Amino acid sequence: MMNIDFKKSNGLVPVIAQEYETNEILMLGYMNKEAFDLTIETKIVHYFSRSKNRIWKKGEESGHIQKLIDLRVDCDEDTLLVIVEQVGNTACHTGAKSCFYRSYFEDNKQT
Amino acid sequence: MMNIDFKKSNGLVPVIAQEYETNEILMLGYMNKEAFDLTIETKIVHYFSRSKNRIWKKGEESGHIQKLIDLRVDCDEDTLLVIVEQVGNTACHTGAKSCFYRSYFEDNKQT
Repeated sequence: MMNIDFKKSNGLVPVIAQEYETNEILMLGYMNKEAFDLTIETKIVHYFSRSKNRIWKKGEESGHIQKLIDLRVDCDEDTLLVIVEQVGNTACHTGAKSCFYRSYFEDNKQT
Repeated sequence: MMNIDFKKSNGLVPVIAQEYETNEILMLGYMNKEAFDLTIETKIVHYFSRSKNRIWKKGEESGHIQKLIDLRVDCDEDTLLVIVEQVGNTACHTGAKSCFYRSYFEDNKQT
């Protein structure tokens, strides 16, 4: 039995979202206990949005929801990894598939 | 040119470590500006350890260092993804390859 440690970081744990077919990393979000419970219950990934300061069903406006395939817990029980099917093939608000579409080295070549 | 936002979360940004050959997620750590600069300079991943409260060269004791292959920055510039070669094939202090070796569903089947 695992107990996710929501107390460590102001009630929020970081959550890595990884696409199940490609292992591509899509984004990093945060969950509080309520978002975690909603995710387990509905099998649709819910985060706690720090900017909106509320529960955020990923894709609630765009339709680009994340269907939960698996949820993995790290050794310290303070970080989560959700394995998802990304509807619409787009996780990032910029329209990119992944939020990590830029390499630091490529973007800083000229500086 | 990217500016990593170290101010948002007490000077620390979350850093996902992913193995470059398999795309497997190994762990999640944190970096402050100093750890980031050391990582860029040495091409060996350095974190800021919240438990040790100091710069932590991953593998400094075990020898299981992470050689930096690429460093990716998310859309908001407040989360990093390091693509690494994991020396020793072990990232987790438990001896597991990845810190995410447990599925929430498998470990909670009987509850």
